[in-house]
Amino acid sequence: MAQKTAPDSTRRSERSRRAIYDAALALVGEVGYVKMTIEAIAARAGVGKQTIYRWWPSKSAVLLDAFLDLSEQASAELSAKAGLAEVATAIPDSGDLEADLKYVLRATVDEMTNPKFDAPARALAAEGVVNEQLGREFVEKLLEPQLQLYVDRLRAAQEQGQVAPHVDPRIALELWTGPLAQRWLQHTAPLGYEYTDTLVEYALYGIAPR
Amino acid sequence: MAQKTAPDSTRRSERSRRAIYDAALALVGEVGYVKMTIEAIAARAGVGKQTIYRWWPSKSAVLLDAFLDLSEQASAELSAKAGLAEVATAIPDSGDLEADLKYVLRATVDEMTNPKFDAPARALAAEGVVNEQLGREFVEKLLEPQLQLYVDRLRAAQEQGQVAPHVDPRIALELWTGPLAQRWLQHTAPLGYEYTDTLVEYALYGIAPR
Repeated sequence: MAQKTAPDSTRRSERSRRAIYDAALALVGEVGYVKMTIEAIAARAGVGKQTIYRWWPSKSAVLLDAFLDLSEQASAELSAKAGLAEVATAIPDSGDLEADLKYVLRATVDEMTNPKFDAPARALAAEGVVNEQLGREFVEKLLEPQLQLYVDRLRAAQEQGQVAPHVDPRIALELWTGPLAQRWLQHTAPLGYEYTDTLVEYALYGIAPR
Repeated sequence: MAQKTAPDSTRRSERSRRAIYDAALALVGEVGYVKMTIEAIAARAGVGKQTIYRWWPSKSAVLLDAFLDLSEQASAELSAKAGLAEVATAIPDSGDLEADLKYVLRATVDEMTNPKFDAPARALAAEGVVNEQLGREFVEKLLEPQLQLYVDRLRAAQEQGQVAPHVDPRIALELWTGPLAQRWLQHTAPLGYEYTDTLVEYALYGIAPR
């Protein structure tokens, strides 16, 4: 009997954890970060408040883990779509930087226009704009690690001679992540594949005549 | 006597208008857009609520005019700094696109790091991220007209042969406005002159070897 208790409890924990993530992501999208409470997350997830406090010290910690989980799910879906047996944790390297960037940015547009991602990410981004501590925490733990994948891919491209040696990869990646973030957050213009393809071409070859 | 009344009343109106703008900009930076009320703006500006309603239908209309006024002031300061007799309403055209863009982006960094601009603009941007109607109104009336100045400058550069004919100026300008907005709003990395200079160089000449 003792041997069966552990897996059961693990499954129960896993179910609770997933319910808490779902509740936190739904709530932050519906009421915003400031009005979201641990009590409301617990009620919606159908768990006790103490269950949440046992695992996380604060609502920002819950939300951070919920987003990490969401982006892992997105990576898993993308990898499955690409026919990969394992979850990709890097930007693909086919040896053709332009093609690889276009592929990843099209997938990013799909994610940004998916309501499951859009509402919570938008609520969090809005709070991060005015709440510098929260903004920095999420950039450090969530956004920057994703941006570093572009740094790695651009370094490889430099070794392959597809990016000029003087280019700083950490700045270069902003030529596409910046415009995409601005269109998404500020609704300045529509997002689409043609747009992201164009960004990649301008960034790689420049807008001045070659 | 009647002849003196009009100018006096105009001066009084102008003083009230300026006090209302200052109050709106200060309040939105301190309490955020949602909690800012017409009553609070009136109290801080030392005018009656009816004075505000006589000129503007809503708090978003007050704030829009306050921001338009603030950016006109910024343009006036920039023009004075450049030794111009009149306020510049376009991006300078010295015939050297790289130099002109670097100059304007350095001025933009100065504005973004000026607390008088930063707090209210940040509060408004945060609200625009989650309040699509407000976001679109401010983009249409405030941000887009500023972005169109880059479109005009890039069209001139195309005629001068400094930008390739196939380039869409409305997308190209995002290569620098997007990254700048992202660093400013999301605190992803510091803003500075060396950074904006680098953005201009990457955007013009591309990151692939020439």
